[in-house]
Amino acid sequence: MAGWQEALERQARTRAKAGLTRILRPRPAGDTVVDLAGNDYLGLAVHPGVIAASVRALQEYGLGATGSRLVRGSTRAHEALETELAGWLGAEQALVYSSGYLANLGAVRALAGPQTLLVSDRYNHASLIDGCKSSGAEVVVAPHADPAALAAILDAHPGRPAVFVTESVFSVDGDLAPLAELHAVTSSRDALLLVDDAHAVGVLGTEGAGGVAAAGLAGKPDVIVTATLSKSLGGAGGVVAGPAALIRHLVDTGRTFIYDTAPPPAVVAGVHAALRLARAADDRRAVLAARGALTARRLGAAGFEVSRPAAGVLSVPAPGPEAAVTWAADCADRDIAVGCFRPPSTPDGSSRLRLTLNAGVAAADFARALDVIVECAP
Amino acid sequence: MAGWQEALERQARTRAKAGLTRILRPRPAGDTVVDLAGNDYLGLAVHPGVIAASVRALQEYGLGATGSRLVRGSTRAHEALETELAGWLGAEQALVYSSGYLANLGAVRALAGPQTLLVSDRYNHASLIDGCKSSGAEVVVAPHADPAALAAILDAHPGRPAVFVTESVFSVDGDLAPLAELHAVTSSRDALLLVDDAHAVGVLGTEGAGGVAAAGLAGKPDVIVTATLSKSLGGAGGVVAGPAALIRHLVDTGRTFIYDTAPPPAVVAGVHAALRLARAADDRRAVLAARGALTARRLGAAGFEVSRPAAGVLSVPAPGPEAAVTWAADCADRDIAVGCFRPPSTPDGSSRLRLTLNAGVAAADFARALDVIVECAP
Repeated sequence: MAGWQEALERQARTRAKAGLTRILRPRPAGDTVVDLAGNDYLGLAVHPGVIAASVRALQEYGLGATGSRLVRGSTRAHEALETELAGWLGAEQALVYSSGYLANLGAVRALAGPQTLLVSDRYNHASLIDGCKSSGAEVVVAPHADPAALAAILDAHPGRPAVFVTESVFSVDGDLAPLAELHAVTSSRDALLLVDDAHAVGVLGTEGAGGVAAAGLAGKPDVIVTATLSKSLGGAGGVVAGPAALIRHLVDTGRTFIYDTAPPPAVVAGVHAALRLARAADDRRAVLAARGALTARRLGAAGFEVSRPAAGVLSVPAPGPEAAVTWAADCADRDIAVGCFRPPSTPDGSSRLRLTLNAGVAAADFARALDVIVECAP
Repeated sequence: MAGWQEALERQARTRAKAGLTRILRPRPAGDTVVDLAGNDYLGLAVHPGVIAASVRALQEYGLGATGSRLVRGSTRAHEALETELAGWLGAEQALVYSSGYLANLGAVRALAGPQTLLVSDRYNHASLIDGCKSSGAEVVVAPHADPAALAAILDAHPGRPAVFVTESVFSVDGDLAPLAELHAVTSSRDALLLVDDAHAVGVLGTEGAGGVAAAGLAGKPDVIVTATLSKSLGGAGGVVAGPAALIRHLVDTGRTFIYDTAPPPAVVAGVHAALRLARAADDRRAVLAARGALTARRLGAAGFEVSRPAAGVLSVPAPGPEAAVTWAADCADRDIAVGCFRPPSTPDGSSRLRLTLNAGVAAADFARALDVIVECAP
């Protein structure tokens, strides 16, 4: 084995000793496991209407988009989805990407000029962090969800163009950033607010329009929203929504938009069908909210310090990475899928179970899942 | 309009004056345009077997993978595709990403330690350039496809771990890097060779295993291959193929792998069907090679300095960006889609048509397309 491979293997052994090895566990089709690990919050990934729309687009367009959006990849399906996404999110325009990761890289870079100060919540997702780093702009990491700290940072850099970058619902603990307060801070200082609404669209706000909409910030000219199409919308891809000037800038200059193959029309069409269902899915949102409250109650009564879910995500601390792995594996042995989050995937370096709720899971299965999680606790 | 939007609009006007505005032109389903713009080299995106496999997976799994690969997104479909990709490419293991862009970001970063020297061909794709930049390693840009220059660069940095990053078939001019010579340079200096084989897999080599395989480098422990699943394989996504130690490293630590939703099972299953078809598609590869030669002959006879196609890509210079746009638009008016490449999408800052050949296009349509391109020339 060559030296570089030996070096990688040494690092792998170090991770293994720390309980940080990650293993892919492919699930079969027709899996009967109760899903408290995925992000299909509304259960739309398996909705017959979503599948039918996707099948129809496959038959009409074939599988791949066959090129980047600007060369050959744009179809009427992409255009129709972008129009409806913009309307839903209350933005002038929306632009679809093949992943939320690339959408975030694109949005952050587009907003970061050479003089720009980027302020980034310390619990932000990897894609936002990478976007900040790769932008070349100065980055200040801000305390989590803290409007006063944000104000102090912006006030310490007067006269600079600035952007505050945050998630709405955070992906591990599931807490909701105080968006209205954060916007009061940014807008009063001529700074922009970029919100990754990935875990809130479909779940919060009127018609599920997301955390930004729920905070009354939809359509504000100084608010830019990104989101994924792979969670409540049951598909894959990402979106940037904001003023037309920004979208035009991304189309003309955004590297992760221009130099990437367009997402398949069948995925885009399926997401569009899911979006229409999501807008009307107040019933599913009510189920999700009830399950969040029930989970917090049930696990709290069992003695866990469970986070309070603002949407469909919550987490339960584990004593350490190996205990978290064992806990999740024991649940899996009883056909309950839960997320197992260890460093570096947790914001504070601690290990925990992450539970993501799914309105599509049968009520009895959901109740059993909570029992199993308690019974398998270390 | 806010100041930052005005600034973006000013930049947009500057680009417009330089002929560099980009416009999305969505195509309808059932489009009868002759495609010399997409990357569906073997015509497999619309193959009934690909569509059927994708439909079947939609019905079995639903649309989205519902989570990252490590949490909930890995399915048997992903595993099966990775196993066959590794076998096809002659690598120990393969890892699928939701895009080639993210695969390249992941592969470059994984190979770049703090002491590493990254040497990058100056015509490399944006995703490779971004991977180099965001790795934090020292980057030296090398003259295009020049083994002697590469040797000089490596010799000027003795004792450093080094990686040479290149495409095999370059995406604009379609020329093939001298991979065997480049590998002789890297291997004799203990450097690694990372090859983005996106435009060559499916097209070059035995069973279409790509440019690396055609150069006799498949399975070499110091060669890492990346590719897209969105070109010859007719779908979407990317892959990194190489030694097991590298793939394990990517699964454990690769940010663009860990923190990204898995590609949809239906896309993965469709790509897998396309891969099986591609391995057996010597007939389609023969058509593609004949069309490359015919295109070079026909356009050469008409007086153009056309590039010699190594695979399915070639380019024809235009007098300037606006002339390139007009040329492509005139072809489009006659139902021929060609790529129009302008700065910053061209390696040398010149504008041109990019023609990408497609073995699935009917012979008469293809002949007519060449006539139209000549007749519409500025």
